[in-house]
Amino acid sequence: MTDPERLDLTATYTDLYQIAMGQVYFLNGHHHHEAVFDYFFRKLPFGGGYAIFAGLYDLLELLERLHFSADDLQNLKQLGLRDEYIAYLKGFRFRGSIYASAEGDIVFPTRPVMRIEGTMLEAQLIETLLLNLVNFQTLIATKASRMRQVAGERTLAEFGLRRAQGLGGYHATRAAIIGGFNSTSNVKAAFDFGVSASGTMAHSFIQHHGDELSAFRMFAEGRPDHCVLLVDTYDTLLSGVPNAITVAKEMEQRGQRLQGIRLDSGDLAYLSKRARVMLDNAGLHHVKIVASNQLDEFVIKSLLEQGAPIDVFGVGTSLVTGHPDAALDGVYKLSLTQNKPRIKISESLKKITLPHKKQVFRIYDGNGHFAGADGITLHDETQIDVMHHPFEPDKSTSFAGLRQEPLLHKVMEQGKILIEKKPLTFIAEYSKARLGLLPEEYKRFQNPHTYKIGLSPRLKALRDQLRSEYRKP
Amino acid sequence: MTDPERLDLTATYTDLYQIAMGQVYFLNGHHHHEAVFDYFFRKLPFGGGYAIFAGLYDLLELLERLHFSADDLQNLKQLGLRDEYIAYLKGFRFRGSIYASAEGDIVFPTRPVMRIEGTMLEAQLIETLLLNLVNFQTLIATKASRMRQVAGERTLAEFGLRRAQGLGGYHATRAAIIGGFNSTSNVKAAFDFGVSASGTMAHSFIQHHGDELSAFRMFAEGRPDHCVLLVDTYDTLLSGVPNAITVAKEMEQRGQRLQGIRLDSGDLAYLSKRARVMLDNAGLHHVKIVASNQLDEFVIKSLLEQGAPIDVFGVGTSLVTGHPDAALDGVYKLSLTQNKPRIKISESLKKITLPHKKQVFRIYDGNGHFAGADGITLHDETQIDVMHHPFEPDKSTSFAGLRQEPLLHKVMEQGKILIEKKPLTFIAEYSKARLGLLPEEYKRFQNPHTYKIGLSPRLKALRDQLRSEYRKP
Repeated sequence: MTDPERLDLTATYTDLYQIAMGQVYFLNGHHHHEAVFDYFFRKLPFGGGYAIFAGLYDLLELLERLHFSADDLQNLKQLGLRDEYIAYLKGFRFRGSIYASAEGDIVFPTRPVMRIEGTMLEAQLIETLLLNLVNFQTLIATKASRMRQVAGERTLAEFGLRRAQGLGGYHATRAAIIGGFNSTSNVKAAFDFGVSASGTMAHSFIQHHGDELSAFRMFAEGRPDHCVLLVDTYDTLLSGVPNAITVAKEMEQRGQRLQGIRLDSGDLAYLSKRARVMLDNAGLHHVKIVASNQLDEFVIKSLLEQGAPIDVFGVGTSLVTGHPDAALDGVYKLSLTQNKPRIKISESLKKITLPHKKQVFRIYDGNGHFAGADGITLHDETQIDVMHHPFEPDKSTSFAGLRQEPLLHKVMEQGKILIEKKPLTFIAEYSKARLGLLPEEYKRFQNPHTYKIGLSPRLKALRDQLRSEYRKP
Repeated sequence: MTDPERLDLTATYTDLYQIAMGQVYFLNGHHHHEAVFDYFFRKLPFGGGYAIFAGLYDLLELLERLHFSADDLQNLKQLGLRDEYIAYLKGFRFRGSIYASAEGDIVFPTRPVMRIEGTMLEAQLIETLLLNLVNFQTLIATKASRMRQVAGERTLAEFGLRRAQGLGGYHATRAAIIGGFNSTSNVKAAFDFGVSASGTMAHSFIQHHGDELSAFRMFAEGRPDHCVLLVDTYDTLLSGVPNAITVAKEMEQRGQRLQGIRLDSGDLAYLSKRARVMLDNAGLHHVKIVASNQLDEFVIKSLLEQGAPIDVFGVGTSLVTGHPDAALDGVYKLSLTQNKPRIKISESLKKITLPHKKQVFRIYDGNGHFAGADGITLHDETQIDVMHHPFEPDKSTSFAGLRQEPLLHKVMEQGKILIEKKPLTFIAEYSKARLGLLPEEYKRFQNPHTYKIGLSPRLKALRDQLRSEYRKP
């Protein structure tokens, strides 16, 4: 029944309780009830000051096709579900609407990043898929963006597939590009997502030949247009770089150019400086220096502060696993059903959810930069003049006269995608432009400024009213 | 070209440099050269004393079918590869042999866990796939095993898909079962891997109804055989548990049984004790208590030390992401090619690889338990009497008279799987039995004993000889 060679993302790519609750709704005729859910997260990853929203278009493409396959329906019978419900699921499609922030935009905790409107059954059946795709890609795009912040215009190459969390490596590539990476080593992801593939050579290639110079020569002949030589197999400065220079000179004779050398061990700051001098002294100013080996945003920052002349950083594990956080805490919460706005009650005001269909407005300062505040309103409000702190009743801020931008746009209607599929480089450019509007204090790694999130007076009044209703004995 | 609904694990699920090196081998006629690689890791995850090897059978199934699809071959043309090489890849299949530890066995750093023998081209083309699958599943099975260590006979349910690293959630389920989990919420993984699916209900189900008692009643009627009620939406002890008791009593009248209640917030030790008393006072001794909310092995241990009467632990994020490590550092190193044993040279003895085809023997003590040592030999040695420390030249240990077990068995020959596909529960049982032979000192979380790894005199002599050859000017 199962084909180990492929993973089909059908409607059973979900938690059992979604399907089980669906049966109960179905048996009571509640599966048609209108439902509105919010996707949001509560905590920024990596102790940073912002996150990059990613995963939206993948999600929409999957939702447009989501169905239970014949195998799925057969398998569901083993779970003790009712025959009439399984028969109903045969025709299941997602026919709801989604409002979302633009993919690649910077996003912040507490405020809705997506609003999902549909029937109770369909909104529930897509929850796990949505969280699985968007939590992860947002985590990785954010991690990638942190590396881009410190790397400036240098090239960032994603090398993570071997240490990725299994098939998670696939979408990690997509998210890394959105966050600002230039290329990937992952051939399949490069093809599927339209990304540049890049790669150098492994130590095994040198070992196979025994002799480093012969190995370099053979590689330069067999792959002349994409030749990056790995120089640390024996001794970087005494053997690897001199041999690479020899080969680079031989390539010049043939009208070819050595693209680069790669350092994969040792003190990358020291070795890159020495290697640069050796290459320059040989007139090989065009030969780039690629560095890899357990890099993250902090190591890249440190290397550049030391003046390491590294042109390309190859980053693997820390990027594709979103280390050290490994997960974004995004949730999917009901905000309206049966024509009534809903909240999830909690002892802690921080964990009470926000009711009703909502919009989010981003506030600009007088210079056209983000002012550091997103205001949440009811969906039919067209602006936000005063914003209340979500958890501290006495705090509020006024935005009179400031430019405001609505952030949630309809991207899917009746199960059909409304927006164009854009190249990842376009989404990455958009992300970069948006980050350019964010003041520096929100981007620093240590104790970044907190971007303010608040509620319109109407939204706050509705939440507080629902809360007091639930509190009644 | 790409279908967002499925991920095909064809031969482009790899790093570009594997394909690029392959071209150079091909152009020089070296693609046929014999090559032997070892898979091993250098550091145990989670600061623990052992790891659980997982991912083997998936890997073998994929290798048996691995090929470049028509789309792959079309796409490869964009990468500047030679036409004759692409034409050759059309017929690519993995026809090599693999020797491996049994899936589910406990494994340790430095020693080969798998040995791959094939042509240089095929051994190189599978590297990334192998590392991607086996590193991750071994990480997660090990994490799961740590939770099983502390949970005793209680039920462990994997609930992680929503926070998993994208599609990594799929194989995370498989590995969790190998490590000792009982069930998963992930419906697709449950079907594909033959695992029990389990699940309860979400807060949204209660919110939808507004009234908790009505929601519980409806769920009990719509899913009577698998009814676990989530009791923390309003107030666990004042509302949730009393309402669950009411519904359990009503179910009894209908000849049905409430399966359990789930606690998902608050002080789980306190709430579970109070809930247990309330259930027992109502004569509902059979109703189980399920707990979830950011559990890991340390929280489970603490809850049980406090006497929390929890029957089922639902674990998500920390399990499926292998938090806090997020990756296993497994590598794939060339040990023989062109009939010559090879090492990767390094300044540090610890990073020098072990040459030649190798076997590993596990030593038993006089009581039939593992003695705490795996000895690495050349492949044609049939036992190991004296074992040398791999990095400290003066240390050795004698095993005269002790029982020894060879650990690497041929599992694939000429690209065909030689071993039977076993149910995951079988692999999990095997893993449990093997862990049962490991003394407790290796299983504790704090400063566990270090399992010794050593080299036979012949292997050590060969490594040292190759090392001194490379050192010659």
